[in-house]
Amino acid sequence: MVTEVGRRSRSDQSGGTRQLILATAERLFAEQGLYAVSNRQISAAAGQGNNAAVGYHFGTKADLVRAIVRQHTERIEELRAELVARVRGSTNVRDWVVCLVCPVTTHLDRLGDPTWYARFGAQVAADPAFRDIMAEESLATPALREVLDGLGRCLADLPTHARHQRGEMIRLLMVHGCAERERATSPKSTWDDTATGMVDAITGLLTAPVTG
Amino acid sequence: MVTEVGRRSRSDQSGGTRQLILATAERLFAEQGLYAVSNRQISAAAGQGNNAAVGYHFGTKADLVRAIVRQHTERIEELRAELVARVRGSTNVRDWVVCLVCPVTTHLDRLGDPTWYARFGAQVAADPAFRDIMAEESLATPALREVLDGLGRCLADLPTHARHQRGEMIRLLMVHGCAERERATSPKSTWDDTATGMVDAITGLLTAPVTG
Repeated sequence: MVTEVGRRSRSDQSGGTRQLILATAERLFAEQGLYAVSNRQISAAAGQGNNAAVGYHFGTKADLVRAIVRQHTERIEELRAELVARVRGSTNVRDWVVCLVCPVTTHLDRLGDPTWYARFGAQVAADPAFRDIMAEESLATPALREVLDGLGRCLADLPTHARHQRGEMIRLLMVHGCAERERATSPKSTWDDTATGMVDAITGLLTAPVTG
Repeated sequence: MVTEVGRRSRSDQSGGTRQLILATAERLFAEQGLYAVSNRQISAAAGQGNNAAVGYHFGTKADLVRAIVRQHTERIEELRAELVARVRGSTNVRDWVVCLVCPVTTHLDRLGDPTWYARFGAQVAADPAFRDIMAEESLATPALREVLDGLGRCLADLPTHARHQRGEMIRLLMVHGCAERERATSPKSTWDDTATGMVDAITGLLTAPVTG
């Protein structure tokens, strides 16, 4: 029993350290960029006496980035699954755009103030090496896949090149739009209003006529 | 006469050095970010024996960034003025969006391959301190002001908050969309095709119905 308690306690402590490192890394990456911040700096800023703490708990910087992304993606995915359940079978583009945008903005809203994940995400998305981690983690989630399939059915007439380019534009709008909103020191709108405006605009972008 | 020639030659040399520093700084900033690169590194990479060459020719880093932006803005502005002359008085949103997007993509296209300015611009736009420089330089140009006024007249019915948010989204799409296209090692489309797709999508985004 004592051993069991001791073990659980050590495990709790380790879980607490992991969380502390994740939160510290997210903030530092958001503020300074992925390349500017070393694992050693993160360990120090997280108050770890051992400079190798990040390596011990997470491995490489890519592993650490993936752990941060996964933690958020899991919660975003839960919110998305709830929304998808309500619109399944819809042929309305806007329904699916809501499922794309709102889980992210709701998650950021629930994180409280200040949040760092949107700026962290913008740093990851701007980096050719780390960007794939975000895509892999997000696309591995069934709810996002269902949303993309739903949108694909609604937009079946869109030529391939336009579909590709518009998908890329939506990614840019979501990533950088959320980062800008998060960065605003005196936001002019709630996350809900931001989301509604993004949904309207992205729906217009997706359904615009294609020239040529 | 001899003095005159000598003077011109020194001035040419100085102009050549300035151009070399501008081009070197643009590339380094595009690749590594504005904070990662020092004036000293730029001087060295530009082959200047004197480490203070950047300071001597341009002053602070902000002055250097402004000089790079201005050089491109002047050429973009010439292209924009030509397009504006063709659509003056138009009440068609797409006409004005063409005047917004195409001068930038045409300029990038003419710079040849590889270009760095789009990635440099994405770095500047992501930085709260330097971003204002870009806005100041761009908004000081009469052709851009005329485009924004033209769009404003077409979209007079759009509520203020939507106009503000959509303006911000267009800025994100243009800055990051061009940077992504520039970054692509095997681009799937010409700059012309990229521009047409952006114009279609931005027109749809701007004219989308507003909820609530």
